[in-house]
Amino acid sequence: MPANRVLVIGAGPAGLSATKELQALGVDVVLVERESYLGGTPKKLKYSLLFPELRPASEVLDPLIKAGEAVKTRYMESIVDKVQQEGDNFVVTIKDKNGKTYTEKVGAIIAASGFEHFDSRRKYEYGYGIIPNIYNISDIEGMLSENRLVTTKGTPPKRVAILLCVGSRDATVGNTHCSRVCCAVSIKQAMEIKERIPDAVVHIYYMDIRTYGLMEDKLYWKAQLNYRVGFIRGRISEFMRGPNDTVVIKGEDTMNLNRALVVPYDMVILANGMELGLGSKQVAKVLGLEFEEHGFVRPMDPDRLPVLSTRKGVFLAGAITGPKTISDSITEGQAAAIKAYEYVSKGIWEEAPRKVAAEVVKH
Amino acid sequence: MPANRVLVIGAGPAGLSATKELQALGVDVVLVERESYLGGTPKKLKYSLLFPELRPASEVLDPLIKAGEAVKTRYMESIVDKVQQEGDNFVVTIKDKNGKTYTEKVGAIIAASGFEHFDSRRKYEYGYGIIPNIYNISDIEGMLSENRLVTTKGTPPKRVAILLCVGSRDATVGNTHCSRVCCAVSIKQAMEIKERIPDAVVHIYYMDIRTYGLMEDKLYWKAQLNYRVGFIRGRISEFMRGPNDTVVIKGEDTMNLNRALVVPYDMVILANGMELGLGSKQVAKVLGLEFEEHGFVRPMDPDRLPVLSTRKGVFLAGAITGPKTISDSITEGQAAAIKAYEYVSKGIWEEAPRKVAAEVVKH
Repeated sequence: MPANRVLVIGAGPAGLSATKELQALGVDVVLVERESYLGGTPKKLKYSLLFPELRPASEVLDPLIKAGEAVKTRYMESIVDKVQQEGDNFVVTIKDKNGKTYTEKVGAIIAASGFEHFDSRRKYEYGYGIIPNIYNISDIEGMLSENRLVTTKGTPPKRVAILLCVGSRDATVGNTHCSRVCCAVSIKQAMEIKERIPDAVVHIYYMDIRTYGLMEDKLYWKAQLNYRVGFIRGRISEFMRGPNDTVVIKGEDTMNLNRALVVPYDMVILANGMELGLGSKQVAKVLGLEFEEHGFVRPMDPDRLPVLSTRKGVFLAGAITGPKTISDSITEGQAAAIKAYEYVSKGIWEEAPRKVAAEVVKH
Repeated sequence: MPANRVLVIGAGPAGLSATKELQALGVDVVLVERESYLGGTPKKLKYSLLFPELRPASEVLDPLIKAGEAVKTRYMESIVDKVQQEGDNFVVTIKDKNGKTYTEKVGAIIAASGFEHFDSRRKYEYGYGIIPNIYNISDIEGMLSENRLVTTKGTPPKRVAILLCVGSRDATVGNTHCSRVCCAVSIKQAMEIKERIPDAVVHIYYMDIRTYGLMEDKLYWKAQLNYRVGFIRGRISEFMRGPNDTVVIKGEDTMNLNRALVVPYDMVILANGMELGLGSKQVAKVLGLEFEEHGFVRPMDPDRLPVLSTRKGVFLAGAITGPKTISDSITEGQAAAIKAYEYVSKGIWEEAPRKVAAEVVKH
């Protein structure tokens, strides 16, 4: 039988959610986080308001962070360096920022090390990092929450363009997946900008608007009806530096005769997508996990057993298996917790027929 | 302390998933299902292949159904008629199809009674039920799995149109939400049709294609590249009966000068969306739950506590709180199971600040 002790890798919403439930059930948790703080990417990027309700991110994050703070065996600014199987248990070597190593023995592991944002410099024709006043949605969260949304002139932007699908749905950068939440985040940011700068013009350039499920009217409709955000279906080929630190968008309007678009803005926001990132790749490697075709970690069975990995005793939660909302990551943390709890308390592990796994890889 | 016994209402993917986990942890489950079989809507409508992998639905459903069959206290063709609070417990009256009633005492309840498909007759201008050769996606699953996809002439259709967003994103029928899975189901059906009838022309009429996350290339791209499915961005105003039992679509192509579309097909498929349905409304009423603005059941906190209801001891899983994939329903079943387990084994119940709940309603 595995030991009644679980290693959780990653202290973002998914990992902290799993931690919270395991602690509630009296399971000993070892928490490893590479950053110096709890809360994961939402904390790192200083998320402002959450879609679709435009509520403060802290309302959702703070109770999770509190659960993380209650963990006694916590390794911050540390990574899992080695994992050795020892019967039903894992002997885990943890390395901190000074290179000092620690050993922990656990019965199960929950990998919840999350995603990283696409680096927009890889889409060089968009000029991120070169042309002034071009930002990522991941930059804008902090600028909104710290009340410093200004152009290089030091004034609030009066003409803002948001470009969706930067690094997503784009074979030219090797990403054929959709990052799932950028539409919602972008529309939320558009409404926040209009709320603060009511006379600003905000345009969203898109291929498809994916405010799926119950988000549709709370974001897509509300942005148009209540905030007069403009939506332009178009393909953008490049950005140019305009006079007076403006940014000129060049592309075509795919709804109107493929008419050429050459439009100046004060500020451009790139909705950069999600990728697995080096952190989670290292976690996957050290745990001996498999990858699916977009580079995320492949579950045992993505339909039926989405929180089980292909390795016995290792569970998955959150964006390590693909783009997720915070809410979905919390739910997956709870699901991973119950499966890990069943494993360490009763030895229950379920295999999917290998045939299924093989089919999944084929496509 | 509540009794170590949980009532699960609904034997679809979410309810059976919760059942499976609770049984694994030794919790006594009482299962109530209004139909005569286990498996929920996927079983009722005879789902053929599942998106995005085009794998047989039985691979995912059968292990869940097996868990349902293992429940000793099972009420089939029955509904929950009354729920009375008795200290920390619920005394539940269950009524079967003959009107006979039974009483069960439980410590917690998981409401997983699911959705119902939009009745396309409410969108009368589409002619469903009046014009021959017009079907719902929910009809097509059974026709595909039983190999009887033919027109009224008894021959396989050679020209097929699939219309997205029927009863979704449509204020004229009172539904402002997106049903989340119809894009994926429709594209999956288009590929299945092309697989069986390679010389068929299949067109999908859409507003936005919402193959979010890792489904993008497996469905939207693959359908175009490998199966030559045509995608037409357009608004369809009505269907007319054409000569020889054809159906003529009338509308406008919103990508090309709003050019008028008048196109004949052998078969038209309406991607009818998801609603709560009378079954779940009755469940919500008998449990004293609240509804959110689209008519689904409102969780305690949709972001942070999505599987807790607003009533202590009552948990939620699957499409009762909004449109869900099968995989998401399974995960929510697991999440609801751990929260119900914590509640019946340790009395743990978490309240969200009411302020949050009030804000959620406002929008």
